[in-house]
Amino acid sequence: MTTPSVIDLLGVLAYGELTSFERTTYGASIAPTVADKVTLAAVAAHEHANFERISAYLVSLGVNPLDAMEPFVAPLNAFHANLEAKDWLEGLMKSYVGDGIAADFYREISTHLDDQTTELVTDILSDSTLADFAVEHLRSAIATDPKVSGRLALWGRRMMGEMISQATVVAGSRPALQELFLGSVNATELTSLVNKLTVAHARRMDQLGLAS
Amino acid sequence: MTTPSVIDLLGVLAYGELTSFERTTYGASIAPTVADKVTLAAVAAHEHANFERISAYLVSLGVNPLDAMEPFVAPLNAFHANLEAKDWLEGLMKSYVGDGIAADFYREISTHLDDQTTELVTDILSDSTLADFAVEHLRSAIATDPKVSGRLALWGRRMMGEMISQATVVAGSRPALQELFLGSVNATELTSLVNKLTVAHARRMDQLGLAS
Repeated sequence: MTTPSVIDLLGVLAYGELTSFERTTYGASIAPTVADKVTLAAVAAHEHANFERISAYLVSLGVNPLDAMEPFVAPLNAFHANLEAKDWLEGLMKSYVGDGIAADFYREISTHLDDQTTELVTDILSDSTLADFAVEHLRSAIATDPKVSGRLALWGRRMMGEMISQATVVAGSRPALQELFLGSVNATELTSLVNKLTVAHARRMDQLGLAS
Repeated sequence: MTTPSVIDLLGVLAYGELTSFERTTYGASIAPTVADKVTLAAVAAHEHANFERISAYLVSLGVNPLDAMEPFVAPLNAFHANLEAKDWLEGLMKSYVGDGIAADFYREISTHLDDQTTELVTDILSDSTLADFAVEHLRSAIATDPKVSGRLALWGRRMMGEMISQATVVAGSRPALQELFLGSVNATELTSLVNKLTVAHARRMDQLGLAS
């Protein structure tokens, strides 16, 4: 069913995949080995394919993908500008932690949508290649030089804070998205969602041996 | 036929497509509009698909793509480090002029290879989406502000010089590639190849109204 909230969700997801594709490719360009470069480039290409799938789905709903993405361009650009990874490790953390929080959020709210949209969103968010790659490289970097763990723990906390801040801005400016979110969950479910996101975030940080 | 020269050519082409993919995606990330970003991201994804086609072909010949690319990683990285585009327009020029010279060169020497390799190389180099996009945007930028033409003309000449310099280094260190090149063409053909590349370069610069 084509509701404004479905289009909003697909729009933010499409622009999210497009910018993930850019950031993952940047990671490939600064990867320490050509094998790592090849792995990240494949992940980036997959993210671009996700973007194209969402775009095609929007077109099938009679919506121009550029129009659907438009409201989310400025907030997502602001998020990334406020949280620019300074190096290879921070970039990996951003992919693992940042994309992880976003995926949890999209997955939770997509369960309130029609089946076809839920299936598309779930399928797009299911690939864990980048998360696995990031965990492996981050763990090894932390083991080699324990000093990096303090910096990365701080970086992870900043990310959670920045995402909550930008999500609030977006929700405030997009009534349809806010309605999708608040209209479909009651106060108990909202607390439960926030708890779920926080628990999942803590688990990801814990995977790296970092405090959340 | 799997000769060292074929593997060398496929290796340099594979790494070339992988780095083109990175640079085109970087262009997408600084594109002035979301529509331009979407166009460049699609071009980048196509370049990645080309990289995967060449890799699969190398694997079918029993060659590890990482091994085939290895000798060309340092020279191509050096080329790009020496010739870093400072902005959006220089990046477009680099794609149009730099990739154009490389494509002319690969196309010319691939005609001395077996049919299957020639077909793959020709097919991979046939897409003109990026060149068309670059010409359109560069022309419009030059028309809007004629002052940029001097800077871009200089940048085009630097690119030709840098490519000749790096090609000489690569040829000197890869006997198989040099043999493919010099063993298959006589002195007249060599002059003719250099002429062809120069003429094609001048035509590209001319398309933009720039002196070569």
